[in-house]
Amino acid sequence: MKEDKKYIKLCFKLAAISRGYVSPNPLVGAVIVKKNRIIGIGYFRRYGDKHAEIRAIEDAGDDVKDSTLYVNLEPHSYYSNNPPCTDAIIKSGIKRVVISNIDPNPKVNGNGIKILRENNIEVEVGVLEKEGEKLNEFYFHYIRTGKPFVILKFAQTLDGFIADLNYNSKWISSESSRKFVQKLRSYVDAIAVGSKTILKDNPYLTVRNFYKPKQPLKVIFDEELETIKYMDKLNVFKEGKIIIFTKSNENYHFQNVEIIKINSIEEALIELGKRKIISLLVEGGSKLLSGFFENQLFNKIYAFISPKVFGKGLNPFENTKGSFEEKIDLYKIKRIENDILAIYYKKC
Amino acid sequence: MKEDKKYIKLCFKLAAISRGYVSPNPLVGAVIVKKNRIIGIGYFRRYGDKHAEIRAIEDAGDDVKDSTLYVNLEPHSYYSNNPPCTDAIIKSGIKRVVISNIDPNPKVNGNGIKILRENNIEVEVGVLEKEGEKLNEFYFHYIRTGKPFVILKFAQTLDGFIADLNYNSKWISSESSRKFVQKLRSYVDAIAVGSKTILKDNPYLTVRNFYKPKQPLKVIFDEELETIKYMDKLNVFKEGKIIIFTKSNENYHFQNVEIIKINSIEEALIELGKRKIISLLVEGGSKLLSGFFENQLFNKIYAFISPKVFGKGLNPFENTKGSFEEKIDLYKIKRIENDILAIYYKKC
Repeated sequence: MKEDKKYIKLCFKLAAISRGYVSPNPLVGAVIVKKNRIIGIGYFRRYGDKHAEIRAIEDAGDDVKDSTLYVNLEPHSYYSNNPPCTDAIIKSGIKRVVISNIDPNPKVNGNGIKILRENNIEVEVGVLEKEGEKLNEFYFHYIRTGKPFVILKFAQTLDGFIADLNYNSKWISSESSRKFVQKLRSYVDAIAVGSKTILKDNPYLTVRNFYKPKQPLKVIFDEELETIKYMDKLNVFKEGKIIIFTKSNENYHFQNVEIIKINSIEEALIELGKRKIISLLVEGGSKLLSGFFENQLFNKIYAFISPKVFGKGLNPFENTKGSFEEKIDLYKIKRIENDILAIYYKKC
Repeated sequence: MKEDKKYIKLCFKLAAISRGYVSPNPLVGAVIVKKNRIIGIGYFRRYGDKHAEIRAIEDAGDDVKDSTLYVNLEPHSYYSNNPPCTDAIIKSGIKRVVISNIDPNPKVNGNGIKILRENNIEVEVGVLEKEGEKLNEFYFHYIRTGKPFVILKFAQTLDGFIADLNYNSKWISSESSRKFVQKLRSYVDAIAVGSKTILKDNPYLTVRNFYKPKQPLKVIFDEELETIKYMDKLNVFKEGKIIIFTKSNENYHFQNVEIIKINSIEEALIELGKRKIISLLVEGGSKLLSGFFENQLFNKIYAFISPKVFGKGLNPFENTKGSFEEKIDLYKIKRIENDILAIYYKKC
């Protein structure tokens, strides 16, 4: 059992290498062990690429017979853009498979395990199950709800301001914190901001400093389609695909810009889900963060707290109907230079 | 050298036992070592009590000759309510003394060390000097400035509110965080709050749950002497000594309540210093915290950040003239249940 956990942990590490590369597929790592020695490893590198199990079997080569396969997610059992992994496992002569999570995808959902067992392979499920769920939290949430996993991110002063009275929100957090945000961006499928943030900060909303084969989709919540007026001057429109969610009935046609009318944030999430966006990073401003918070349409919060003090300004959830009731749980705190990064999950 | 640090660390531990008991004197621990074995320990237990060095020498008994004395603060060399420790050390036959900090008290300030050396005792100074300074930060600050070491303490929601719009500030932080505040109170000489906090929260401002031979002085900043009107109903007036700082010219005479007219917070600190208050915990509200912050009249901040969200309310440094410049350094972060405790020092 202790050995099983050790190898499943290695699967997690291998799987995590591809964070941000595999969406809408899950992160998967695989390790093959024979007589207490690793004989092969593999991980799912990119969407459309070979599966982790196959890579590990190939890596093990002729030694694979009678070995144990460790993999964090149930092997798939149907023809996708890859043939069923279950077939390859059975053919290889592997005699035991240890799995962290059942794949909730209705096309698998226990079927992979069933097929393996029917072929006399010993299968163990649920090793470090919770850690496996966390690793693939984007995927699990998306498969279960059809909507992207939503992360709210903001940087605030110690006294709770994400911008000063002139809406200056730049440089609230340290350079290292801002670099961390670049990493976060490289993990997600889409980044959302409100129109005011676009007009005030003129951000690019791209991943720099971190390798990302496909830039995240840019999402703008713009009730009155105000950003359209200043399109020429706004960096966000310079490259990449953009979706604008609006309440306006006006319609425009631009290359790479899709304008979608919505009545609620939930509708926007459903639209993103339809487009196979499994994760969304909401970077502000206050109005947009408040909308997601108030409607409880989020999964996780990344709050950067800088040692600055403004005295007055804009709070992150300005005018949200707050309460003494806690709607979030502190998950982790991390020091980044002089900043605190506090990570919360929505209370279940 | 490594051994020296080990024993000085033990001195710190012994000294810290008396946190909150010795003011306005410093915390002192002493360890006597002979041929790599501890033969005596001592710590300064209470204001007016025997000094740490004397206790350690007594504990070592006849073995003390030719030993090494470790002590975090330079032994004193003058007649106070105790005879000079230097005399006892010389008389004991101790041959080496290792010290963390020179005592900045003008009556000592290197004189203790000089006397020991003149008597052929080998003296080493500055071992873990910075840690020693932190241990006695109240004392060092007071000796150097004549004013108490000021700690600003507040509990806020994640979005930066210390009270909701109805000024309800109770139960923002968890029970464990509030217990931690009780401990903080037990360490200081005085606790200050503004009149509004008194009128809204009706606090006792006492140390419960933690042993404290002498309750801290209660300090109220009350410009218009409003609290006086409701004296009968206010818990703060039920027991213990109170100082009220006011701008009002009115005068009242009550037992245990001293009313002092001031023109600035700094004047209040000078008045407290005169009364041998070496540490002051400022517990709010917003106006008082802002006053201390804006005038940079503080040394340390304890910010408790709860996972609650209010959307609107009162910020801790409401209307302070803030800036993008950082005036504080993050010292430590600590998780207390679902709360974050962030400890800052004023930037030097």
